[in-house]
Amino acid sequence: MRIKLTVAYDGTDFCGWAAQTGRRTVQGTLTEAVRQVSGEEIEILGASRTDSGAHARGQVCHFDTHVSIPPPKWASILNRVLPSDVAVQASKVEAQTFHSRFSALDRYYRYRILTVPRDPHRARFTHAYGRPLDVAKMQAGAHALLGEHDFLAFTEELDPSVENTRRTLYRFDVSQVRDEVWVDVVGTAFLRGMMRRMSGALLEVGRGHRPVEEVSRLLDAEERNRLQWPVVLPARGLCLMKVRYGRHTRDNRVGDPRTASIYDV
Amino acid sequence: MRIKLTVAYDGTDFCGWAAQTGRRTVQGTLTEAVRQVSGEEIEILGASRTDSGAHARGQVCHFDTHVSIPPPKWASILNRVLPSDVAVQASKVEAQTFHSRFSALDRYYRYRILTVPRDPHRARFTHAYGRPLDVAKMQAGAHALLGEHDFLAFTEELDPSVENTRRTLYRFDVSQVRDEVWVDVVGTAFLRGMMRRMSGALLEVGRGHRPVEEVSRLLDAEERNRLQWPVVLPARGLCLMKVRYGRHTRDNRVGDPRTASIYDV
Repeated sequence: MRIKLTVAYDGTDFCGWAAQTGRRTVQGTLTEAVRQVSGEEIEILGASRTDSGAHARGQVCHFDTHVSIPPPKWASILNRVLPSDVAVQASKVEAQTFHSRFSALDRYYRYRILTVPRDPHRARFTHAYGRPLDVAKMQAGAHALLGEHDFLAFTEELDPSVENTRRTLYRFDVSQVRDEVWVDVVGTAFLRGMMRRMSGALLEVGRGHRPVEEVSRLLDAEERNRLQWPVVLPARGLCLMKVRYGRHTRDNRVGDPRTASIYDV
Repeated sequence: MRIKLTVAYDGTDFCGWAAQTGRRTVQGTLTEAVRQVSGEEIEILGASRTDSGAHARGQVCHFDTHVSIPPPKWASILNRVLPSDVAVQASKVEAQTFHSRFSALDRYYRYRILTVPRDPHRARFTHAYGRPLDVAKMQAGAHALLGEHDFLAFTEELDPSVENTRRTLYRFDVSQVRDEVWVDVVGTAFLRGMMRRMSGALLEVGRGHRPVEEVSRLLDAEERNRLQWPVVLPARGLCLMKVRYGRHTRDNRVGDPRTASIYDV
């Protein structure tokens, strides 16, 4: 039976999602919890390999089990053995064709920037920029990034297996919410570090250090090499909000699996 | 020159406010920061000795200095050397008659109870009770605690120097805020553990384990010994929201200093 889990975590004390020997990771912690409950040597696969220190409200993962626990019960049973910085919010059965990574329609990330100096109650979940930002300019920059583009300037030095740095963003909003600026982005897939670099470029625009026109020039193959590439903001401000799936997961193998693979931020 | 600081902290990784040799405390961390900046052997005194693990949004403390830093600048200067789980929100000069503890008019505490199972993003700041609560019944219980009473049943085993366990609460609200229940209390002073035990009694009422009438019976000298005394809830749900002072601090030495002393939670 294939079980789908929706998972939230405070990523501060995890070395990211992906299991690594000798490191505390979310994937490793969840795998250990499921093995403890089921006694099976299961493997957990996730929708998105979030960075060390990045958070999730709606990470999705799946595993196969022969244990006869009713699928919706997995959430509360796993929460009994999980540490307080990770929690399963929901569990349900899925068809064997469901794959948390490849069946995903799109991912929704939020980057939170604090516009007041410091707040210890939000230190783990925000980038403390500490001064007001020109949100209208940031919105204009965000608009330039919406749609399908080559996001080469917004990623880490490339793994040679990434053949294609084109991605499509469906939603890109910048909004002032009380004393924070939220950068909300939805796209089918993201390059490694892409959210943190797009947010970094918009922060530079919002503080007046980079003209808003430069954002679209970073998308242009000829122009981008003449520009200073965007700074990567710290992972603590980043949160995977939601991974969306269609009603009929059997039909949802969207796009090229390579573009939705390990290069998700 | 007497400097007043308003301080916020995530208390999770502190052994409370009060300095203790060999332990990481808020008072100790702030004292070290001021000494580092000023080079003076200053002493910091605070309005409230919050418990290990309890938080603050508006703790107030003061110290005396001869260093010629403009008083409003202390906040940003100290924040440069303070760790991310404590921050100075404001700094200002006060008269030598001002005392963060004895000049305080009242203290405002909030206890946060999570009514959904778990949320890693709020694990440090809420008590994860995990089920819905009858807030109307909790409000009725809170109403019984409003005003002046002997709160003996709501404190720890007594230090012999506490002569008087009568306290006055001016405001006592219980409210459902999205998926949390907030217990908001304002009073001149609090006994040690009082907020966490009052919240514990109301939680028992809200979940139907204790009749609402029992709350007022806990205030009665003859009846309280026949009842089970309230459970103390974990410190992580507790936050010192605000300490209030009058306009003329010289006139604000309210009440008996003993009742506003080290027994504040």
